[in-house]
Amino acid sequence: MRMALEPSPDPSTYHYAHDIRVRFAETDAMGIVHHAAYLPYFEEARVAFLRAIDHPYTSIRDEGFEFTVLEAFVRYLQPLRFDDVVTVHVGVGAVTRATFQLAYLLTVDGDQRATGVTVHGCVTTAGRPARLPAWLPEIAKHYRGKDG
Amino acid sequence: MRMALEPSPDPSTYHYAHDIRVRFAETDAMGIVHHAAYLPYFEEARVAFLRAIDHPYTSIRDEGFEFTVLEAFVRYLQPLRFDDVVTVHVGVGAVTRATFQLAYLLTVDGDQRATGVTVHGCVTTAGRPARLPAWLPEIAKHYRGKDG
Amino acid sequence: MRMALEPSPDPSTYHYAHDIRVRFAETDAMGIVHHAAYLPYFEEARVAFLRAIDHPYTSIRDEGFEFTVLEAFVRYLQPLRFDDVVTVHVGVGAVTRATFQLAYLLTVDGDQRATGVTVHGCVTTAGRPARLPAWLPEIAKHYRGKDG
Amino acid sequence: MRMALEPSPDPSTYHYAHDIRVRFAETDAMGIVHHAAYLPYFEEARVAFLRAIDHPYTSIRDEGFEFTVLEAFVRYLQPLRFDDVVTVHVGVGAVTRATFQLAYLLTVDGDQRATGVTVHGCVTTAGRPARLPAWLPEIAKHYRGKDG
Repeated sequence: MRMALEPSPDPSTYHYAHDIRVRFAETDAMGIVHHAAYLPYFEEARVAFLRAIDHPYTSIRDEGFEFTVLEAFVRYLQPLRFDDVVTVHVGVGAVTRATFQLAYLLTVDGDQRATGVTVHGCVTTAGRPARLPAWLPEIAKHYRGKDG
Repeated sequence: MRMALEPSPDPSTYHYAHDIRVRFAETDAMGIVHHAAYLPYFEEARVAFLRAIDHPYTSIRDEGFEFTVLEAFVRYLQPLRFDDVVTVHVGVGAVTRATFQLAYLLTVDGDQRATGVTVHGCVTTAGRPARLPAWLPEIAKHYRGKDG
Repeated sequence: MRMALEPSPDPSTYHYAHDIRVRFAETDAMGIVHHAAYLPYFEEARVAFLRAIDHPYTSIRDEGFEFTVLEAFVRYLQPLRFDDVVTVHVGVGAVTRATFQLAYLLTVDGDQRATGVTVHGCVTTAGRPARLPAWLPEIAKHYRGKDG
Repeated sequence: MRMALEPSPDPSTYHYAHDIRVRFAETDAMGIVHHAAYLPYFEEARVAFLRAIDHPYTSIRDEGFEFTVLEAFVRYLQPLRFDDVVTVHVGVGAVTRATFQLAYLLTVDGDQRATGVTVHGCVTTAGRPARLPAWLPEIAKHYRGKDG
């Protein structure tokens, strides 16, 4: 498994936090958020994170690149419910020449609800593999420093 | 309102029928199919209809066109539930030079569950308005004849 | 058609506005927001509206009621794109003993993108039809006054 | 990580195969199926698998149980596109007293597109942990035998 991160249960080890309120459309007949809805939460949070560090995803696309998702993992700890305000903590993990990994922790009022990891590559909008933008390893270095 | 069709409650007035089994992911915390999930049902059925009449949507896209959705309407009569096999009846309605309308009737075991209408235009893949493909008015004529 | 509202193109005639940033997950292979994604936008906005007028939807559910969706209509004017911040304007329309209607206007930077209407009924959580809560016609009266 | 299965790239090692045609609604602005859409594909395939072995999920719910998702993993190998007919291969993996794991392989025309794993527990509809139904370890034994 390429995935190498074990998401931390400690919010303070993450680099960014983004709040999302659960939509009714995201619940299922068990009365809780459907398990597939967590991946768009991760995505919204990483897009917000990129915006916060002045590398908005729209600018990445404008430069002719896409960050593809190579792997995704979710561990469901406690259910999320309609109208919960979920804090999605995002951390930058292992960065290689061609991939980077992000860790996620979801909390509601400070209680852990889920963790996750996504592994990403970079491709041109034509779909060819591309090197990661130069700023990405730099940021990861910076953030890993904060972690250490 | 551009929308001009009143969907018939009679399955025999429709031109095509396509079965879809409800996914758990499509239910919500009321224990029924979420109201937004009906539009992808309509879409899947019209794509199947186009395939059945030898104008698959992929070939339309390959020729450089898209059918955009200009308007959509759903009337929810009785809930759909997880694992229901929903029959989506599709009928071709009013066709103008630039738009066409489709009517839908959803049934489960012959019982009405919902009706709907979508209004479509044709654009080039670059997004410019385009004339409808020549076969479309022909088909509508043909099918309206069947209705009459 | 039960639906009776014609949504106004003028934001000032609406009673509430709620911002939603488009998720990448909501786009489709035309490069724009998929047409089915608008209904959850309407839903998120009406839930925010109910919260803003001190009748949060969670309290409605706690009291043993659900607002069902009886009809939904969307008119797509200009596409929405990834990362757009969409302002969803919500207005309360015709209220009867058993149903109420909401109108929606979607704008991005003040430009119209879509309008819509939803028609709702009230049921007990067991699924039986129920009268609308007493505060709802009152609010509609109040808001229609603002419209007049 | 509780997840213990490494999904096999060989379709013949799986116990069940279920075809799903990609909906346009499931694509994103990269022109491919959005990564979050794979989890509902897994879900549809495991529901079909349970039906095929005469333990339909609706009967499990009728008996007062739910299979919750504890963990989910997806590895994206090659993109899926609109209208692809995806074969979802499902295999039963490690079964403990309280959990079971399923492996998935997605192919299109025999080519690998993705693999995945889900880990499940069993709860009562009131949400309390419950033992797995007696038939589940039996089936896993049976199927693992087929694997060995």
